Amino acid sequence: MSSVRTPDPNPGWLGEEELAAIRQRLPLLYVEAVPVRTDGMGRVTEVGLLLRVGASGTIARTIVSGRVLYGETLRDALFRHLEKDLGPMAFPQLPASPVPFQVAEYFPTPSPSQYTDERQHAVALAYVVPVTGTCDPRQDALELTWMTPEEASSPSVAQEMEGGRGGLVRAALASVGRLV
Amino acid sequence: MSSVRTPDPNPGWLGEEELAAIRQRLPLLYVEAVPVRTDGMGRVTEVGLLLRVGASGTIARTIVSGRVLYGETLRDALFRHLEKDLGPMAFPQLPASPVPFQVAEYFPTPSPSQYTDERQHAVALAYVVPVTGTCDPRQDALELTWMTPEEASSPSVAQEMEGGRGGLVRAALASVGRLV
Amino acid sequence: MSSVRTPDPNPGWLGEEELAAIRQRLPLLYVEAVPVRTDGMGRVTEVGLLLRVGASGTIARTIVSGRVLYGETLRDALFRHLEKDLGPMAFPQLPASPVPFQVAEYFPTPSPSQYTDERQHAVALAYVVPVTGTCDPRQDALELTWMTPEEASSPSVAQEMEGGRGGLVRAALASVGRLV
Amino acid sequence: MSSVRTPDPNPGWLGEEELAAIRQRLPLLYVEAVPVRTDGMGRVTEVGLLLRVGASGTIARTIVSGRVLYGETLRDALFRHLEKDLGPMAFPQLPASPVPFQVAEYFPTPSPSQYTDERQHAVALAYVVPVTGTCDPRQDALELTWMTPEEASSPSVAQEMEGGRGGLVRAALASVGRLV
Repeated sequence: MSSVRTPDPNPGWLGEEELAAIRQRLPLLYVEAVPVRTDGMGRVTEVGLLLRVGASGTIARTIVSGRVLYGETLRDALFRHLEKDLGPMAFPQLPASPVPFQVAEYFPTPSPSQYTDERQHAVALAYVVPVTGTCDPRQDALELTWMTPEEASSPSVAQEMEGGRGGLVRAALASVGRLV
Repeated sequence: MSSVRTPDPNPGWLGEEELAAIRQRLPLLYVEAVPVRTDGMGRVTEVGLLLRVGASGTIARTIVSGRVLYGETLRDALFRHLEKDLGPMAFPQLPASPVPFQVAEYFPTPSPSQYTDERQHAVALAYVVPVTGTCDPRQDALELTWMTPEEASSPSVAQEMEGGRGGLVRAALASVGRLV
Repeated sequence: MSSVRTPDPNPGWLGEEELAAIRQRLPLLYVEAVPVRTDGMGRVTEVGLLLRVGASGTIARTIVSGRVLYGETLRDALFRHLEKDLGPMAFPQLPASPVPFQVAEYFPTPSPSQYTDERQHAVALAYVVPVTGTCDPRQDALELTWMTPEEASSPSVAQEMEGGRGGLVRAALASVGRLV
Repeated sequence: MSSVRTPDPNPGWLGEEELAAIRQRLPLLYVEAVPVRTDGMGRVTEVGLLLRVGASGTIARTIVSGRVLYGETLRDALFRHLEKDLGPMAFPQLPASPVPFQVAEYFPTPSPSQYTDERQHAVALAYVVPVTGTCDPRQDALELTWMTPEEASSPSVAQEMEGGRGGLVRAALASVGRLV
């Protein structure tokens, strides 16, 4: 959802040009996921953040994120983007509830929201997703870094995150009772 | 979000034709609200359902529902549609939290979801909204009927609701601890 | 939490007599769990309800339920009662979030709440818990019956449930988007 | 819930001595509230924190907090403690939903939880509560300080808060989409 990403290789039923036009006309629906590791009792012990290289060579951290396609369920979109970003062996445990821990509103222009996306107006349903397998970042992601809840919610990490997502990671930790 | 509605008089930055085309290509983002009355302690005592006449003359019940426009916050969209459907004196108390009680996925074709909308694929963030003023339904709504939680969650009312929204009203009541 | 149960074999740090006295003086804290089966995408496909025989020979349905002991975390209490009621091979996946889908208030006397417990005033934090292993009900439970969401939310099943928990099962299904 | 408080003047149906004994035997059920101001659209603009003087003369910040009595609903307990701490003209808007934004577990001894209470094991259901009137702190509270979300979530304020409640205030802000 920001300029450091390469184009989505699977733009659904829309060509790139069409999508670009629509991006100026309608809010786009996204799903986002904060991957976590949990202990045997379900308590979150680590948070996984992706490292990406942008077109301009800048490096930024982000979370799993992507568009919902026409005809696709939220669950299918979430699974598709988790697999795309974490690889086929991550074994994410999708939540039983479709209610997100937060709804993040991304605007290209100044707004009351803390989240920004210079390309578009996007509304993202954000979930905490435990992953039990081996993560192998793909596409344009350099690596997945596992951090403690304390590290992931630190100011220095927040500063490295795309589009204001530092606040979203903190909200994810708060929702699972792990924000100090 | 269904055929019994007249066209949205404010299609945002899109002409009707354009919107019709996009409806076949992208999921559209909606907000929906279940209006409620509460007692002095915040406990839900009544649920408000709208009665509408469709193009074919059929009558159906529904809740407050409408599209989020480009550049509009969820909060602004929710307020705009509440005012549009309940009138300017309803004095809705928008929730402090932007997290919906449920996310309803509407599909034009058979899907795992219980919600349908023959016009489009729409994803609606649904909220329970206490209203403290006088409701005066506008546009194409005939009237707003206040019901007890028991009535609003009954099978006969569920059957009269558009697009499977009977289940959404029940989920709204469950979220406030008022579903028996 | 009702008379059909045999005494808790592990009354914590309290003797039965002491506990009986406290039950008339303080609200007791409980955790409850609605066991579910999910498909590979996290979607709830089945709900597990326990069948118990009461002292008077009556048979009733219920969910996993039990007291939180002094010094015990909610997570530990939830796990302990799941193991006690479903056996050691159920492999429950405790939720990452400690926020319950509902808080059920049980009163021994008429109250605004829909939940009753003739023995005590209890407040239960209720969770939906996917179980991935084999359930082998223990203690006083006769069996665990797996039902579809439709069956579990039917009026006939609701009528068989202890203390008004039919409404709690419906709220559990609503919270995971599976109440029609 | 900490030593800086004077004794609860209304110990319910229990004498002080009895309550002291029970505090070593059972987890006690509390409700807590983070008072907020909202704008006309329901968006949180300010957070209210209480300032208290402890027995030893230390000053600490806290939120509205108190025990649930035998036979009392959560809603009644919440209202009673809001009135006790903010005065009779605060006009709190209790939430329609009884589901807390967080469950805080307070332990007297080291535990996995970030919350501590040297007196007891307490489990608190925590709510965000908009107040629309005039607050006039009572009892042992010196004053109520209104802060911006940024101030209320700052490390310096967190350090002044009793029992680790700085994390709870941040979780409250996260739950309403106002934690940066």
